[in-house]
Amino acid sequence: MTIHSFNPPPRTLMGPGPADVHPRVLAALARPTIGHLDPAFVAMMDELKTLLRATFRTQNALTMPVSAPGSAGMEMCFLNLVEPGDEVVVCVNGVFGGRMRENVERAGGKPIVVQGTWGRAVDPDQVESALGQHPRARILAFVHAETSTGASSDAKALAAIARRHDCLTIVDTVTSLGGSPVEVDAWGLDAVYSGSQKCLSCTPGLAPVTFSERALEKVRARTTKVRSWFLDLNLVMGYWSGEQKRTYHHTAPVNALYALHESLVMLAEEGLEQTWKRHRHHHLALRAGLEALGLELIVPEAERLAQLNSVSVPTGIDEAVLRARLLQRYNLEIGAGLGDLAGKIWRIGLMGYSSRPANILLCLGAFATELEAMGHHGDAGAALAAARAVLDQGFDAP
Amino acid sequence: MTIHSFNPPPRTLMGPGPADVHPRVLAALARPTIGHLDPAFVAMMDELKTLLRATFRTQNALTMPVSAPGSAGMEMCFLNLVEPGDEVVVCVNGVFGGRMRENVERAGGKPIVVQGTWGRAVDPDQVESALGQHPRARILAFVHAETSTGASSDAKALAAIARRHDCLTIVDTVTSLGGSPVEVDAWGLDAVYSGSQKCLSCTPGLAPVTFSERALEKVRARTTKVRSWFLDLNLVMGYWSGEQKRTYHHTAPVNALYALHESLVMLAEEGLEQTWKRHRHHHLALRAGLEALGLELIVPEAERLAQLNSVSVPTGIDEAVLRARLLQRYNLEIGAGLGDLAGKIWRIGLMGYSSRPANILLCLGAFATELEAMGHHGDAGAALAAARAVLDQGFDAP
Repeated sequence: MTIHSFNPPPRTLMGPGPADVHPRVLAALARPTIGHLDPAFVAMMDELKTLLRATFRTQNALTMPVSAPGSAGMEMCFLNLVEPGDEVVVCVNGVFGGRMRENVERAGGKPIVVQGTWGRAVDPDQVESALGQHPRARILAFVHAETSTGASSDAKALAAIARRHDCLTIVDTVTSLGGSPVEVDAWGLDAVYSGSQKCLSCTPGLAPVTFSERALEKVRARTTKVRSWFLDLNLVMGYWSGEQKRTYHHTAPVNALYALHESLVMLAEEGLEQTWKRHRHHHLALRAGLEALGLELIVPEAERLAQLNSVSVPTGIDEAVLRARLLQRYNLEIGAGLGDLAGKIWRIGLMGYSSRPANILLCLGAFATELEAMGHHGDAGAALAAARAVLDQGFDAP
Repeated sequence: MTIHSFNPPPRTLMGPGPADVHPRVLAALARPTIGHLDPAFVAMMDELKTLLRATFRTQNALTMPVSAPGSAGMEMCFLNLVEPGDEVVVCVNGVFGGRMRENVERAGGKPIVVQGTWGRAVDPDQVESALGQHPRARILAFVHAETSTGASSDAKALAAIARRHDCLTIVDTVTSLGGSPVEVDAWGLDAVYSGSQKCLSCTPGLAPVTFSERALEKVRARTTKVRSWFLDLNLVMGYWSGEQKRTYHHTAPVNALYALHESLVMLAEEGLEQTWKRHRHHHLALRAGLEALGLELIVPEAERLAQLNSVSVPTGIDEAVLRARLLQRYNLEIGAGLGDLAGKIWRIGLMGYSSRPANILLCLGAFATELEAMGHHGDAGAALAAARAVLDQGFDAP
């Protein structure tokens, strides 16, 4: 069998990530590879750190992309901050909270789970109570924007509770960063990770992270070695640090970093706050259209993410059939439910470059016509008009 | 300060990696991103596994690229195969053997070091003796091609010794795969990792790995959890396995995998054995030229890698000044020495797409003229003629 070059079908990506990647970012990705210790590359790395600090809204010196997907960013936070025997309070309100618990165990720590509800925000009262009952815990871990459900938690409030209990925070911002406010310094978050492929609209494979000075103090005070050489902050810092000679640690994913740099330049050009407004505005337009089709979002309004919309599958509809039709006929990808929500929801992402009016109309039109063909009746014209009415109001409408 | 798009200077990469990336691979990298669970992507992943098996010369079912650099491939091997308390015999004849020892420690194992000589192959007699003295050790770890020195070890002989002592092997082929023979099945290697950015001539950021059934038996028999969630083979297999429904593990670096696929298609087009011959042939041409300039390779001929040439810095020459001149004037990158060899050698890579006649002439010409200007006299014309004479002989010359 001869294997030929791979030419992917051009898709529109409206699942939970990856999101559509802008042509400027793809062009950056394909620029000629240079060495990972090349002075020109090292200067680009410094710019990348500056751009990431602006995106995370932090002055943290240690702010950089991990050379691996968001899952590795998560693991870097847990393996460095958690020592064997440490108690860690972990909020679980979806798949990624569950993964945090797994990470605590792999690091040798003892997870104390605050069990929440799928599709809902983390409950601050439950967290307050758990921290009160476990005074030895020094870390609170939670997911800011649960990718498996589309629920947003109040990171500012949770971080304030943690501080009162003398705890550091480990925060997952994989789906929030670049799509809705993330204020690392103003909210006092300590170890924060994200992914390149969602609201940053870069290709998948990198995990931006940032660590507060408090977090680094805990890392420096460790009495045991970090259980990963690749993710050991003490070593990674030697390569990414601006203060001293760059020490070779691993070969950086040079081209992927070009792409992240370009996506962050584009984010800065648009303006971070303007980007948040755009995501919110397009979410409202999509929601208006979905509701006109008789579809419901599962997350209560106050806890909804703009960038990820979880829609209940109507009775009698096979969700996988609809997704397959959208993909085959319109090259449109949307997401399925995970875990407890498998089969029950679709996840529609409006992330980064995917968050634009053309995608909203495509998605609503495809849902309307394919659901109609499957026996669920909705008014396509009304859905498009409802979305259009919101788009007409502009970004600053309430 | 406004940060603009990054445009890297076009370099010729003749260091220890990354190597020059072929335009076809860069073009593949920039193809539109699709979802990591898209049926078209999953089909491409299956092709990628087939291509990697051909490259590693193995039938191992579990053969795939790790979504992170070669260092993470190393870590995947050690964290999965080594359990706390396990004795592991580790051969150290350069930087990467030392890193293996670190990996054993991070996994909770007890490294037993076979200390070799920098710039020399691993000594099979020393290994035999160490395994005899440590009958509890069940793993032998060694670097096939030491990137820090350019020395090649006899992987076949070392694996046979390991087998006699009932040990599995963990083998680093980061610099050998695609450049010189690697025969995973014929030599009976068990856990083997490599990197995308050297002789495979892909962009940096991926780590091809392959595991024998014996290795997987040891992983399945673990009594403790793997210390990394991201690199836990039991979980990663669920996403890469062809037999069952793909389970989401992490978001694959989609575009990077396009690039690896294309680089392996190109390798298959050329033919793996032909590629090995090309690397050998161009090494001989470069060597002839370097020797005509009065420069010496530090590795004894029988232990030399074709793809990575370590050259002694002549007395009175500041090696860093020469490297800076090559980079600034000719956009030519070569490598410095690491560890014990820092300041004493240059490392000249002829890897993958970098292994071509034009690069040999550029490198020899640049060395000749810049060394002359620094007071080291060599005959540039003789060097070029010597290289050309080898090139004239063709790939199959002895």
